[in-house]
Amino acid sequence: MNTQPLTGLIAATYTPFDASGQLALSQIGPMVEYLLSSGVQGLYVCGSTGEGMSLTTTERQEVAAAYMAAADGRVPVLVQVGHNSVEDAKALAAHAQEIGVAAISATCPSYFKIDSVATLVSTMAQIAGAAPQLPFYYYHIPSLTGSAIDIAQFMRMADNHIPNLVGLKYTDTKVFEFQECQAIEGGKYDIVWGADEMLLGALASGAKGAIGSTYNVAAPLYGKLIAAFESNDLPTARKLQLQSIEFIRIMGRYPFHSAMKELLKMLGHDLGTCRLPQRGLTGEEIESLRIQLAASQYFAPVLTPAT
Amino acid sequence: MNTQPLTGLIAATYTPFDASGQLALSQIGPMVEYLLSSGVQGLYVCGSTGEGMSLTTTERQEVAAAYMAAADGRVPVLVQVGHNSVEDAKALAAHAQEIGVAAISATCPSYFKIDSVATLVSTMAQIAGAAPQLPFYYYHIPSLTGSAIDIAQFMRMADNHIPNLVGLKYTDTKVFEFQECQAIEGGKYDIVWGADEMLLGALASGAKGAIGSTYNVAAPLYGKLIAAFESNDLPTARKLQLQSIEFIRIMGRYPFHSAMKELLKMLGHDLGTCRLPQRGLTGEEIESLRIQLAASQYFAPVLTPAT
Amino acid sequence: MNTQPLTGLIAATYTPFDASGQLALSQIGPMVEYLLSSGVQGLYVCGSTGEGMSLTTTERQEVAAAYMAAADGRVPVLVQVGHNSVEDAKALAAHAQEIGVAAISATCPSYFKIDSVATLVSTMAQIAGAAPQLPFYYYHIPSLTGSAIDIAQFMRMADNHIPNLVGLKYTDTKVFEFQECQAIEGGKYDIVWGADEMLLGALASGAKGAIGSTYNVAAPLYGKLIAAFESNDLPTARKLQLQSIEFIRIMGRYPFHSAMKELLKMLGHDLGTCRLPQRGLTGEEIESLRIQLAASQYFAPVLTPAT
Amino acid sequence: MNTQPLTGLIAATYTPFDASGQLALSQIGPMVEYLLSSGVQGLYVCGSTGEGMSLTTTERQEVAAAYMAAADGRVPVLVQVGHNSVEDAKALAAHAQEIGVAAISATCPSYFKIDSVATLVSTMAQIAGAAPQLPFYYYHIPSLTGSAIDIAQFMRMADNHIPNLVGLKYTDTKVFEFQECQAIEGGKYDIVWGADEMLLGALASGAKGAIGSTYNVAAPLYGKLIAAFESNDLPTARKLQLQSIEFIRIMGRYPFHSAMKELLKMLGHDLGTCRLPQRGLTGEEIESLRIQLAASQYFAPVLTPAT
Repeated sequence: MNTQPLTGLIAATYTPFDASGQLALSQIGPMVEYLLSSGVQGLYVCGSTGEGMSLTTTERQEVAAAYMAAADGRVPVLVQVGHNSVEDAKALAAHAQEIGVAAISATCPSYFKIDSVATLVSTMAQIAGAAPQLPFYYYHIPSLTGSAIDIAQFMRMADNHIPNLVGLKYTDTKVFEFQECQAIEGGKYDIVWGADEMLLGALASGAKGAIGSTYNVAAPLYGKLIAAFESNDLPTARKLQLQSIEFIRIMGRYPFHSAMKELLKMLGHDLGTCRLPQRGLTGEEIESLRIQLAASQYFAPVLTPAT
Repeated sequence: MNTQPLTGLIAATYTPFDASGQLALSQIGPMVEYLLSSGVQGLYVCGSTGEGMSLTTTERQEVAAAYMAAADGRVPVLVQVGHNSVEDAKALAAHAQEIGVAAISATCPSYFKIDSVATLVSTMAQIAGAAPQLPFYYYHIPSLTGSAIDIAQFMRMADNHIPNLVGLKYTDTKVFEFQECQAIEGGKYDIVWGADEMLLGALASGAKGAIGSTYNVAAPLYGKLIAAFESNDLPTARKLQLQSIEFIRIMGRYPFHSAMKELLKMLGHDLGTCRLPQRGLTGEEIESLRIQLAASQYFAPVLTPAT
Repeated sequence: MNTQPLTGLIAATYTPFDASGQLALSQIGPMVEYLLSSGVQGLYVCGSTGEGMSLTTTERQEVAAAYMAAADGRVPVLVQVGHNSVEDAKALAAHAQEIGVAAISATCPSYFKIDSVATLVSTMAQIAGAAPQLPFYYYHIPSLTGSAIDIAQFMRMADNHIPNLVGLKYTDTKVFEFQECQAIEGGKYDIVWGADEMLLGALASGAKGAIGSTYNVAAPLYGKLIAAFESNDLPTARKLQLQSIEFIRIMGRYPFHSAMKELLKMLGHDLGTCRLPQRGLTGEEIESLRIQLAASQYFAPVLTPAT
Repeated sequence: MNTQPLTGLIAATYTPFDASGQLALSQIGPMVEYLLSSGVQGLYVCGSTGEGMSLTTTERQEVAAAYMAAADGRVPVLVQVGHNSVEDAKALAAHAQEIGVAAISATCPSYFKIDSVATLVSTMAQIAGAAPQLPFYYYHIPSLTGSAIDIAQFMRMADNHIPNLVGLKYTDTKVFEFQECQAIEGGKYDIVWGADEMLLGALASGAKGAIGSTYNVAAPLYGKLIAAFESNDLPTARKLQLQSIEFIRIMGRYPFHSAMKELLKMLGHDLGTCRLPQRGLTGEEIESLRIQLAASQYFAPVLTPAT
């Protein structure tokens, strides 16, 4: 598979809903303009951030198409197609290929747990095989899928069985495992970092690209972090990472993505609230969130404690 | 909701596939005749056993309809509608109501974990509310959903918020929790036991009905166990439960439901093999399974070590 | 090993401390009289309830000796000798043999996790071998040790390697596993039940003896439960078990053993408070505990809401 | 507390045993010379690597004293005093102060799980308070203790309650948490990195010192890694970290510390084998380990496939 590695910040995009909880696709265009203007260099659609698992298969296709249209070829669009039903995942993969996305990506099912490396390879081979002309990134996020499969062993075994496998979205904290995956087959695979709050450590360990949710609201922060890292100014890079850590800790006091959607609203982008099973914030929580963010280093310049 | 509690053995049914992995609905009729002739008193369709999560939403509706048609009013048919996407779950619930099933049941989503009792109540209220004329059983199976919610607290809070909640499919080993749920509101709820290998302990603790996968192949064993229990012949009941434990331990040496489907084939019912992510057994494993079952107390009379 | 199985209620005893947190051995005599008068038929010393792991090795020997003296041959005294250091465990086992206890028992270490059934057998062989004249009960309590070892496989392998192995203190909720262990080698082993809140299910499944902490304060309740079970009066047995469940749920709202020690105080037995890392209750918590217990079915007759 | 932060590589030392499993203290002197000659700048005694939890309290004191004597003031010696029994931990702390070690460190108990940040503070205050003249490092290693306490919150609360708290041995993979702890109170605390296979990411994120087991056998590798990092030569640093990762993955195929002791033997330092519950390697495993190490990048120059 002839493909360029991902570089820079890839926003794991949010899915906009209206007040009744239905898709609000018209919000995607303005959101994409905002993301691109803030320095985002790619879009990862219908992942955990985008509540892919909480959408119907038809809705996922609509969201993917809307982001493709809005991106209009300016940045790569990746579509996450993982599903408890491998049949649905295959349908999503085939659709993604039809609309010409840059690459697909998939988690393993989360209900039935994968019993072995070989079974994970077989399962992903089916999904990747439904979009054979697209590069495929496995999406490793064990905190949500509950998978206990050794990811480096998976990559090694998949090397011979999934022709369009090109890399990994690595969303865990084991930097050694991330580095091991980078080294497989002489660096053949594109291992993309997925834990925003540890970006600096990953950069030092060889990361070139990163996919994450907080790049939706703080891409300039991470852009400066990367620039500081590249100019060997580690003290500045650490300070910026610490601002990210502070911000993420505040969000973590609430259902995370619901809090992110509230922050987006505070920043002028109303994408609605998350669908259940992720609950929305109460009015009191939103006020408390605003107060904390307005007192935080990164968001203080743009937020006031009260509306 | 005016409803009768479930009693006796409810088979958590298997979903038949053909050699290409597509639905083989024509196998459902003969399977239901076999189940009813073996003493099964109800059908629980598209649960974990039935690979509900591995089917598309359309396929789930087809399977539910086929089991309804095959049952033809002779025993209650329950349909499991849980899905990572609550929208899909609602569509499945509405369809189940249209085709007139006896009751619906749903797990919580497994990808995004539920953060609180209140959120679980809200989520289940949406699903149950999509089939308001049907009784609703919450399906508690934390080993697969990863839910850490206190189920007795859920039942108490749901009591005021989900009008058609009538009970629980309890698939865990905490008999004290099962008994606590039975006692809520003076015994208002129908708490159905879901761990076949502990049926005797549950009966002693008050169970009236049980839903499980091994009732597909060994209902006579469990029927005798219940009869022995009811006639206060505990030594016999224990011996029969021990046969069940021996048999389930053999199955547990393989991907469980895939092994069950092989056993069904040995017994003359070809429902195909499980879909990924549950892998099928190798030829060697099937032979080894047959040898062990042919040497086990319950299956020895009907199986030979080799085909 | 020529030994009688344990029968009836064995109290997992508490260790008394004075106000400065030092052993208050003089409290043991009166406590034993109270336990025996309440129907307790054996004592299990320095287990989880007795904070064995929070004592020094010397203190554990003192406590064991004090309980032996107080029991004075009237009921069997078992001493728990498990320790992160197998050397300490062996010293405790040898001491227990010297003072002539009825049997020893041991958990596996909790810091370094046991990697295989064979390693658990080797480890327990060392400990049991330090008291070769005493019967040995392995103490299975995975919620505290973190052990993932299959306990039935352990018993089968240990059968050939630990000459004085006579049974198991089974503290988990998997009744099927308990029953499987009972059946090993034609019922050779004495499998003692360890989850008080599920005693009824265990009795139905074959339990003859039970070791637990709540038998310190509610032996009469459980005595009646056993009597009702034995006379086939399951409705009464269930009601009594439900009283136990209600009581245990109240205790579970606090650090469990610290709450138990407060209840013991309310009942007239001052054994002090638990040592860290188990924190004591605040004054407010004690008052709230008293109110709830005074409103509970079992303790209402003997407790008033306020002191 | 007036103390210097730890810098460079601190070996988490091994405890030598003879063939009968008893302490072989005479091996400590030569081992320390070897460690210092290899570039190690400090010793962390009786931690997980040193099997502290598998020793008796007396043995731990002997080992601490022997390492103190061997170090002879050339490098700081830290002694780990954590124990399931806080009383034992206090005795170990007091002894460490008597023999004049540089600092003490302690895990929380692993059997009874700590229920709250406040309880962890109270528990550590008791232990640290038994050696009030020594700096105290909390030892955070949740994979072994099972602790679920938020470590940054612990450090913040402990700041006011444990006068001699000076830092943390951080043995987990959450670099963001490590960085957050570094920033508490303006960088007041010395947060020492504990995951050897992720040293590079930690250095980039601000680590100054590191405590680990593999520094016993590969300090030169890590020394070069640090030097490369400090001269901004990240490609070289990554290559060296990758050698460490390769080596650690080989060791991880066996009981880790038992494999480390076999490697030490291959390198000429016979410290015996680990005590149970950590099992030793079989002869076949030792041969296989040697073959893999002899083929690995770092150890190839010094090991041959067969003895």
